[in-house]
Amino acid sequence: MLDFSYQNGTRIHFGRNTERDAGELTAPYGQTVLLLYGQGSIRGSGLYDRVLLSLENKGLRVVELGGVRPNPTVELARQGIELCRKKRVDIILAVGGGSVIDSAKAIAAGIDHEGDVWDFYTGKAEPQNALPVGVILTIPAAGSESSMFSVLSNPEGQWKKGFGHPLLRPAFAILNPELTFSLPAYQTACGASDMLAHVMERYFSNTPHVHLSDRLCEGVMKTIIELAPLAIMDPEDYDVRAELMWAGTVAHHDFLNSGRETDWASHGIEHEISALYDLAHGAGLSIVFPAWMRYVVQGNTGKMAQFATRVFGFELDFDHPDRTAMLGIEALEDFYIKLGLPVRLCDAGIDEDRISEMARKATGDGAWTLGTYRTLDSEAVADILQLAK
Amino acid sequence: MLDFSYQNGTRIHFGRNTERDAGELTAPYGQTVLLLYGQGSIRGSGLYDRVLLSLENKGLRVVELGGVRPNPTVELARQGIELCRKKRVDIILAVGGGSVIDSAKAIAAGIDHEGDVWDFYTGKAEPQNALPVGVILTIPAAGSESSMFSVLSNPEGQWKKGFGHPLLRPAFAILNPELTFSLPAYQTACGASDMLAHVMERYFSNTPHVHLSDRLCEGVMKTIIELAPLAIMDPEDYDVRAELMWAGTVAHHDFLNSGRETDWASHGIEHEISALYDLAHGAGLSIVFPAWMRYVVQGNTGKMAQFATRVFGFELDFDHPDRTAMLGIEALEDFYIKLGLPVRLCDAGIDEDRISEMARKATGDGAWTLGTYRTLDSEAVADILQLAK
Repeated sequence: MLDFSYQNGTRIHFGRNTERDAGELTAPYGQTVLLLYGQGSIRGSGLYDRVLLSLENKGLRVVELGGVRPNPTVELARQGIELCRKKRVDIILAVGGGSVIDSAKAIAAGIDHEGDVWDFYTGKAEPQNALPVGVILTIPAAGSESSMFSVLSNPEGQWKKGFGHPLLRPAFAILNPELTFSLPAYQTACGASDMLAHVMERYFSNTPHVHLSDRLCEGVMKTIIELAPLAIMDPEDYDVRAELMWAGTVAHHDFLNSGRETDWASHGIEHEISALYDLAHGAGLSIVFPAWMRYVVQGNTGKMAQFATRVFGFELDFDHPDRTAMLGIEALEDFYIKLGLPVRLCDAGIDEDRISEMARKATGDGAWTLGTYRTLDSEAVADILQLAK
Repeated sequence: MLDFSYQNGTRIHFGRNTERDAGELTAPYGQTVLLLYGQGSIRGSGLYDRVLLSLENKGLRVVELGGVRPNPTVELARQGIELCRKKRVDIILAVGGGSVIDSAKAIAAGIDHEGDVWDFYTGKAEPQNALPVGVILTIPAAGSESSMFSVLSNPEGQWKKGFGHPLLRPAFAILNPELTFSLPAYQTACGASDMLAHVMERYFSNTPHVHLSDRLCEGVMKTIIELAPLAIMDPEDYDVRAELMWAGTVAHHDFLNSGRETDWASHGIEHEISALYDLAHGAGLSIVFPAWMRYVVQGNTGKMAQFATRVFGFELDFDHPDRTAMLGIEALEDFYIKLGLPVRLCDAGIDEDRISEMARKATGDGAWTLGTYRTLDSEAVADILQLAK
């Protein structure tokens, strides 16, 4: 077990009708709030009206910015920064999924930064302070509602990059599972894939003696694998939606990675796919993960055999743990297929033309490697993408 | 799954030599720190010197109060409150286990309270504010290092009572597993029993559809049951001590009870035992829990059969789940016995003379009931204590 320092002070406000408490939770942070949202679906559902009413009932001044897209860009963040400076915003309320929350974090950290906000994503600068961010979550997936991470795309150069900082943790997150009833099957599936990946990036670790966090990870993975198909079958089952929503937060809450090295290679590879092809992150992950697992399995077969037995319930083949490990990888792939997700690049209509370009960008032209479970250079990334053809 | 509101902002600073960072973690909270500790064992081990050096290196003024006893009393808390007022203390640093931390919380909350600090424990008053509390944990057991609870004894009337408030959550907790190497076997066992009980009080719940938190609880319970005997066998195995220490924090961190009703009847009953007989809390719990389980098992056999299968690995007897449930209770009892803990009142030298007195006090002479898994009145508590004879 490794040394660690853990703190996550995000208040989770979970349950039916909780969006009606938005005003009460926002008011302690100031007078002027930026209401940030996506493509306007929150207007059709009535959520917009309920949130606005709750904010206005507490006497808050509301500034609005809509139009955040999936795979959100730094351009909108820059626009948000200008707006917040001009309107002297005190707190940002992000209503949406990971794209909206990640944009809110960029704006929050960018306001006091003299340079360009993209500097945070390239590692050129680090935020010194940030506005508080509140969240009303509508898509359980990214776990951004209590994480310290933000991922943005930069169309100049087709970059997609993430960075993390404790200042980015939201002050509060409102989670009402009923808001997820209307999510289409594909988006529900992409969300499940994303949250599962967040656990797997923590789980596949060479750190020895991490029994406790292994088991916490396994509990979350089993829950996602068991419930995601049910959420698609019956989208308005409150309890199923509730457990899945909470699993998405727990997956990325940093409680599960206490004392262990984490990997994140699959995320790094996937970012290159969705930067070029504008694919949903969860759909990119269901393509990358099985290929990554097949590529790295020989380095630490034990942990992958453990995954197969504890998460998917296979009996361990004590003579051939590698066979058990392979059964786990196949079961994971079957799970993705059952959810209607792509598991090969061709399933998503992506050919192999740009594999070497993606491998090159993922490793900064050889400036860095990816992963810890097995260290990957540009060639290894290309091999993994070849396995995913 | 029930609605819930969760927030736990305690910073966990975990690993070897972390007590050397005490000054750095304490300094942001002010100039004058009360160093609170127990019976002086921290002097013999050199911990006292290291902590003092770390505080003084940051220019902090140190006020001291030692002498906190197991089953700590409100009298020492009153003394601490007077001292802190007089010396204008800004932050309390508790060096020890649950007794010291719970006393620190009482002092922290009592300073601005005009009445007696015991008022919080009887429910007569609620804290309006509290000094920050920092922790250097030396006994993993109570989970008080990140919980919002404090339990004190009041010798006038032989009361032992607890209360909880978000203001009581420590600002930070330093956890160095090496500090627990010197814990005697019995104290290690009592600690394991205490942390296991904190999970079981959350786990045995009638709330339906709590798959995720069930599994998180099961992961922590399995870890404690697997590792506690190893910690006794080889007290200086760092990884075993580390996982056990972290399990104790996780057990009482409130992450595991999100969305579920909790019980706490066994804690209520145990407090009456240790109030009268000054028994270690963990040893009282190993007596009460098996008896409580045998008494309540028929109300919700399913969850107890799940405990037996998932935590202890028994195959479910689908025709007779009650038999599987009983196997789980017996396995738990065997675990306590293996650790050298009492499982009957007589094992701790307690006869049945005061059973009805304890049952009466536990339910406030009939003013309240205990528990939620099954509601217990004074008579039920007496029956459970009879089962524990």
